[in-house]
Amino acid sequence: MRQRPASARTSPPSAALDAAGHPALLLVDGVSSIGSMDFRMDEWGVDVAVTGSQKGFMLPAGLAIVAFSPKALAATETATLRRCFFDVRDMGRSQAAGGFPYTPPVGLLNGLKLATGLLLAEGLDNVFARHRRIADGVRAAVAAWGLELCAERADIRSDTVSAIRTPVGFDATRIVTHAAQVYDVAFGVGLGDVAGKVFRIGHLGALTDVMALSGVAAAEMAMVDLGLDVRLGSGVAAAQEVYRRTAAADLRAAA
Amino acid sequence: MRQRPASARTSPPSAALDAAGHPALLLVDGVSSIGSMDFRMDEWGVDVAVTGSQKGFMLPAGLAIVAFSPKALAATETATLRRCFFDVRDMGRSQAAGGFPYTPPVGLLNGLKLATGLLLAEGLDNVFARHRRIADGVRAAVAAWGLELCAERADIRSDTVSAIRTPVGFDATRIVTHAAQVYDVAFGVGLGDVAGKVFRIGHLGALTDVMALSGVAAAEMAMVDLGLDVRLGSGVAAAQEVYRRTAAADLRAAA
Amino acid sequence: MRQRPASARTSPPSAALDAAGHPALLLVDGVSSIGSMDFRMDEWGVDVAVTGSQKGFMLPAGLAIVAFSPKALAATETATLRRCFFDVRDMGRSQAAGGFPYTPPVGLLNGLKLATGLLLAEGLDNVFARHRRIADGVRAAVAAWGLELCAERADIRSDTVSAIRTPVGFDATRIVTHAAQVYDVAFGVGLGDVAGKVFRIGHLGALTDVMALSGVAAAEMAMVDLGLDVRLGSGVAAAQEVYRRTAAADLRAAA
Amino acid sequence: MRQRPASARTSPPSAALDAAGHPALLLVDGVSSIGSMDFRMDEWGVDVAVTGSQKGFMLPAGLAIVAFSPKALAATETATLRRCFFDVRDMGRSQAAGGFPYTPPVGLLNGLKLATGLLLAEGLDNVFARHRRIADGVRAAVAAWGLELCAERADIRSDTVSAIRTPVGFDATRIVTHAAQVYDVAFGVGLGDVAGKVFRIGHLGALTDVMALSGVAAAEMAMVDLGLDVRLGSGVAAAQEVYRRTAAADLRAAA
Repeated sequence: MRQRPASARTSPPSAALDAAGHPALLLVDGVSSIGSMDFRMDEWGVDVAVTGSQKGFMLPAGLAIVAFSPKALAATETATLRRCFFDVRDMGRSQAAGGFPYTPPVGLLNGLKLATGLLLAEGLDNVFARHRRIADGVRAAVAAWGLELCAERADIRSDTVSAIRTPVGFDATRIVTHAAQVYDVAFGVGLGDVAGKVFRIGHLGALTDVMALSGVAAAEMAMVDLGLDVRLGSGVAAAQEVYRRTAAADLRAAA
Repeated sequence: MRQRPASARTSPPSAALDAAGHPALLLVDGVSSIGSMDFRMDEWGVDVAVTGSQKGFMLPAGLAIVAFSPKALAATETATLRRCFFDVRDMGRSQAAGGFPYTPPVGLLNGLKLATGLLLAEGLDNVFARHRRIADGVRAAVAAWGLELCAERADIRSDTVSAIRTPVGFDATRIVTHAAQVYDVAFGVGLGDVAGKVFRIGHLGALTDVMALSGVAAAEMAMVDLGLDVRLGSGVAAAQEVYRRTAAADLRAAA
Repeated sequence: MRQRPASARTSPPSAALDAAGHPALLLVDGVSSIGSMDFRMDEWGVDVAVTGSQKGFMLPAGLAIVAFSPKALAATETATLRRCFFDVRDMGRSQAAGGFPYTPPVGLLNGLKLATGLLLAEGLDNVFARHRRIADGVRAAVAAWGLELCAERADIRSDTVSAIRTPVGFDATRIVTHAAQVYDVAFGVGLGDVAGKVFRIGHLGALTDVMALSGVAAAEMAMVDLGLDVRLGSGVAAAQEVYRRTAAADLRAAA
Repeated sequence: MRQRPASARTSPPSAALDAAGHPALLLVDGVSSIGSMDFRMDEWGVDVAVTGSQKGFMLPAGLAIVAFSPKALAATETATLRRCFFDVRDMGRSQAAGGFPYTPPVGLLNGLKLATGLLLAEGLDNVFARHRRIADGVRAAVAAWGLELCAERADIRSDTVSAIRTPVGFDATRIVTHAAQVYDVAFGVGLGDVAGKVFRIGHLGALTDVMALSGVAAAEMAMVDLGLDVRLGSGVAAAQEVYRRTAAADLRAAA
């Protein structure tokens, strides 16, 4: 059995707030990470965390999953925004009585029970390690293409999605459009400051090595089709090397 | 709109029987081909054709789909094998009355209606061309690996499954076992005379270019893992070249 | 083909607002009615209508379906409530560009397309008449039990749910609890002013006569179990009489 | 916990064969009973038992489930009927090696695993008692209608289906046709000697009291529609009385 690694971070995300003595709540958008990467709400001092059903939990879109710290719950008592549907106090009162304040999406709740069962059966550390392995393969492909990630340092890389910078002057969104039209593969566009400068490959959830390779292969074809200086098979081979080396290690460890 | 190509065969499959004046029925096992490759029961003089729900029709296994020529139907009247469940005359009588002689698998029949609707909406010639394209990619990968198909001539190749010969002395079944265990990918073993000498990649049904590439990539990793002289990414690159060239042609044709 | 009946109302719901010269928006909670009973947003001067996927549209819970009149849309420009997720202007901008501002629940949207297709294929007037028939049967059962509806006048009755008053001193919620525990049937409790005074039988969506009868039968058993003065089979027989009379009329009309 | 009742039969079904010293195999068609009523293959000396996925196992049609005694297996070695697909020796050899001789219907096999898990979780004796209760209700309805079962003695009644005799001169099949057309409810026709003389109500599988009541109510309406001397609600009331009395007993036993 593997040991749960100590969190690699030297200081939790809330340290900056604490250091500044700032009363702000620490909110985490974990839509693309919770359930796929390590997340420690209490240990890291997180006040509100939100995720959805459609990524790490491998379900259709439909559930917003929100967690509050005691500090955040206290803040709902003094918050002045007028609200109704999103007043978590109604939700809390109903759940304390074993119910819901509104019609619950029973199917997705049953799905969530099943999905969390699958994650726990695999073991959270194994789930996180699997996403790390798959992400390492995609990152090896990016390097083989001679491209760079949007994340400039290794410690801020995501193991669930890779935003890839394309050469200056090339509209990265064309890759997304082309891959969808020609290869029926959905990549993500860059948003905000990096619109047109990056495209994103999502690699999380119920994903295997070879599924990730199919995404790498599609990106490769799209880039070649659009005239970028990328060699067919180069990124796939780099990712394959990562996958076959680490898969073999997994099997040895399990033996 | 594309024109339906004339059948490439110079003589129909029944020609040999006709030439010999032999009264045998011509039976076709179309499990892995009907719905994915051209098949002309009447034109080719086929007497009995059988397929299943689980390949070209993209459904779960469960339905055996059988067609009889008038000659085959007549033969059921004089056949001497004792039979009950498989007496097609019961089936014929019930269907003439709008029913079934036994409890019908309603779900699969509804699925078959939907599946045939999808095939007809795509257009049978487009469906056949898609399988040809995908098979061409897989065959390009096989050539890039320095391996050969079990089918020795181009005119007997299948567009839905490729049986690949491995080097003499190597047990091809190991590739199938390894890919299933390590990469969660199902290939087929060689059967009968070619057991241990070939492994099979199925490539039919609701399949896209990049799905086929994931199978090629998995085979590649498995072969490298097992010590065969194959370069990672080589087969994938060869298949990618086929797919991107022909996909572009498709788009130009559709424009 | 049947003719669409003219709306039975002598004045639209917005008449009172118009008569008073009041600038308020007319909002309609159509969760339990839209798709099952006649609703005419423009003709009736409705500004905002909301419904869900889980009732008349026969889908799992998950979609809130909202429609705005031009007057309501204009009001969103001057509204002062701070909002983000529920700012329909974002939704409008994205939909104008063929997209969504947030991850859409694709499965439910596909289901809505299918469900609305079913409703249109049946014919909205036929759908409304079916709900009227089924409601008439439930109401006949209520009368046979010697009970009364919460709705005191026929013109404010709902064809999709019947709230039934129980004798003074009896806690109506016990029927709901008992039916769920003993007969695995879900009724609704009274809310607000009528809590404990009524229980509700929902009868909408993909419902047939005999499904409604099973609900009537369950209510009957629960009431007898709990000591109310109701005769087993009495409500069922009254509803059956409605159903068999109107079903026969339907068949004659269709002949 | 309830004790498993000793089998009520004074002699097993194979006793007659044994008494006669006859070498015939004892074959049981358990399609409508296995999984819903007590069945003891070894204890009763059964040689071949067959059932399907679509009744007691609550799945779509598609699986034939067959069990052989050692005596029946031995007979397959000497049987002279030419056979291929139905040669159970192929099935036995493949299953001994952990596989199947033909493509298995994986979805239904997974379903069977789930369904048998549900049956075992409920407890087989509870499952059998539930079917007995539901059947008792249907039989009470039949008596209330003044009709009789096809089964003339209580010890040969089925707890999963009731074949009901209609008055002499009345074509019982009309009830089946009418209920399907007008009430969208599927009853079964009489077969063979009792064609036109009986109609059948199936009451097995994932069925609750109120579902059974809906079938009773539909039969009642159909019979009244067709002029039979049956009072609306009479059968339902009789079945309700059985259900509410026995449901209450169940709750007391569980308390």
